[in-house]
Parts: sequence; structure tokens; C-alpha cells
Amino acid sequence: MQHVAPLAKLIEQFRRLPGIGPKMAARLAYHILEMDKEKVVALSQAILEAKEKIGYCSVCFNLTDCDPCRICQAAERDGSVICVVEQPQDVAAMERTREYRGLYHVLHGALSPLEGIGPDDIRLKELLARLQHGSVQEVIMATNPNVEGEATAMYIARLLKPLGITVTRIAHGLPVGGDLEYADEVTLSKALENRRNM
Amino acid sequence: MQHVAPLAKLIEQFRRLPGIGPKMAARLAYHILEMDKEKVVALSQAILEAKEKIGYCSVCFNLTDCDPCRICQAAERDGSVICVVEQPQDVAAMERTREYRGLYHVLHGALSPLEGIGPDDIRLKELLARLQHGSVQEVIMATNPNVEGEATAMYIARLLKPLGITVTRIAHGLPVGGDLEYADEVTLSKALENRRNM
Repeated sequence: MQHVAPLAKLIEQFRRLPGIGPKMAARLAYHILEMDKEKVVALSQAILEAKEKIGYCSVCFNLTDCDPCRICQAAERDGSVICVVEQPQDVAAMERTREYRGLYHVLHGALSPLEGIGPDDIRLKELLARLQHGSVQEVIMATNPNVEGEATAMYIARLLKPLGITVTRIAHGLPVGGDLEYADEVTLSKALENRRNM
Repeated sequence: MQHVAPLAKLIEQFRRLPGIGPKMAARLAYHILEMDKEKVVALSQAILEAKEKIGYCSVCFNLTDCDPCRICQAAERDGSVICVVEQPQDVAAMERTREYRGLYHVLHGALSPLEGIGPDDIRLKELLARLQHGSVQEVIMATNPNVEGEATAMYIARLLKPLGITVTRIAHGLPVGGDLEYADEVTLSKALENRRNM
């Protein structure tokens, strides 16, 4: 009798979301009950609509509500460069820099023999197909700088070399605003290794 | 072009919830897109249903999906004791103890002259009306142990004394499992003041 049924159900639903514990779930549920009706309807519909309207772009496999996605369709973007990332979130991160004007390819994962994720489990075939047209000159490997991401970048780089396409890897080094004292050894030695003339 | 419109809208909706920052909102929204359709529908409906089905009990003003609420209706509960709390969450906290078998009254706030919350802004009239029947013998003031909660408890206690009703206040003291060393002075002096024979 601690919570009425619809409230208990809502708390349970919130608990299933990532990063939300029991206290936070209860807090959110009580907040919903205090919100204006129309705001609750708006939240409920936003959840449904996002799921219904968003799918994957058939070209780059980024999230999109039209196919091909707006980035693939955009005439002002440079079709000769493809930036390969693991997840749609990574595309959003790259777009936030406002520096990159090429296209993307989302692998939806990284190679991981330990977890049984091989080349057929990520969107690799689709990347190779895109490169057949011959208009792509550079592929930037922007997979995560961890073991799986590095291995995936290496694997794909080796596949693409024979095609005569330049394959580059985003730089490793100290994060801007970071502290030398607290940098881990691997990052610091990478930063030293990749030093540049000033 | 960082996020497609339905996704941006969903992130914005999540951001409005308490305790959810921009990173967490994005994480939740991306998670929604990866969830199975039927689970997304269940979440969306749970939010709507909680808002639609839950209202306030006309007797104790706790959250309920039937009126009067299940606690007010329950024959096995002791109708001679009313525990006065500030929020519906406090009823849930009391119920978790499984110790209390009386009824509740939810004030929906505490007196706060600074915030302009006076006796007419909380469910005080309704509490007094419940006490007219003469069946209530004890009122337990379980408002929060802060300035507003204490003031509210004092104010109500003074109102009820002339009616010949016993008014009690939940005890102050050290939290169980707490550490004497880290207890604040006020709590510790309260704990000393309210010491009991062993």
C-alpha cells in the first residue's frame, strides 16, 4: 500500500531507464503527478513520436526522420570525405564542433572478439559499398580511443588501403583544458609522440 | 543539424524533469530510440495513465486512484490517530516502516512566511474539519524537521490543544546507523535532551 498502482507502475517504468535508481524514479514519478496535464501529454507524445518517426538513414545509418538523412542529402557538404563513427551519438558530438563538413558512416558498434562482435555485426559491408563509387577520397576513422575502437579502425584501414583511399585517424593527445599532472601515461606518451612544430 | 527534430524535442522534454541535465537527457533519449517499440509504448502510457488516474483523496489529500483512498477506507486501520505530513511522499516513507496503523493527513506544504505560504495555503481547514467528529484522539505531527516544518507543527499543535486532542511530535535524534562524530550540534543536543532510560 506504499504507492497506488498507476504510480508504482510509473516508478517501475522510470527505473528501467539507464542511470535512474529507485529514489530518482520515485522523484520523477511524483514530479509527473504535479505537472500540468498538457505538459504530461507533451512528454508522453514526445517519447512515442521519437520512437515512431526516427529510423536509420539507408546511406550512412545515422538516426534520421527522412531517408536519406539531411546530412547525406545536403548539397553543401563535402562528399569526398566520410567520417566513420561507432554510434549516432558520435555524429552529434562531431557536429557540435562545427568544423567537419564531410559525410558520416555509423558502424553501430565496434569489433570485439570477446563479445563476439565481428565484421558482419557492424555496418562495414555498407561502408565498403559506399566506397565503390570512387567519389570518396578520404575516410576518417573516428571510432572511440579504446581497445575495440582502435582495433576497428586498424581493421577497416587495412581493408581500405588497397582501394587507394586515404585513411586517417583522429588524433590522440591531452584534452584541451586538461591537466598534465592527471593525464594517464598512455595519453601522455601519445601526446608526446604526436607533437608538432610550433 | 545536431539532432533530428523528434529527438531534439524528446531531449528537451527530458531536460525539464528535475535532476536531469543535458547529458542525461540525451542519454535517456538515445536509449528510448534503442528500446523495443512495445516498451516505449508502455512507458509513454504509464506516464499518461499515472497523471489521468491519480488524484487527491478528498479526506486525507494523499495521492489515490479511488476516493476515499485505500488507507482512509481500510477497516483495519486505527481511525483514532491521524499522522500529519507535508507531502504524499512522506506518507509513502511512513508506510515503508510498516509500524504505523493510523490514518494520515497531507498538508501539501508547510507554513513559510518568507515564501508567503500561510495557513490558508495548506490543507489545514480540512484537517480541522476532520477533527470535529470527535473520533480522533491523537494527532502526530510528522512535518519535516526543518524551520518551516517545526513552525507548522507548533502552529497546528496550538490550534488543536483547545479541542482536547493529544498532539505529539515525531522524535528528533541521531539517525540509526549514523555517526556521532559527524552529527550536527543541533541534532546531537536534541538527542541528548530526549534521552531515555535503558
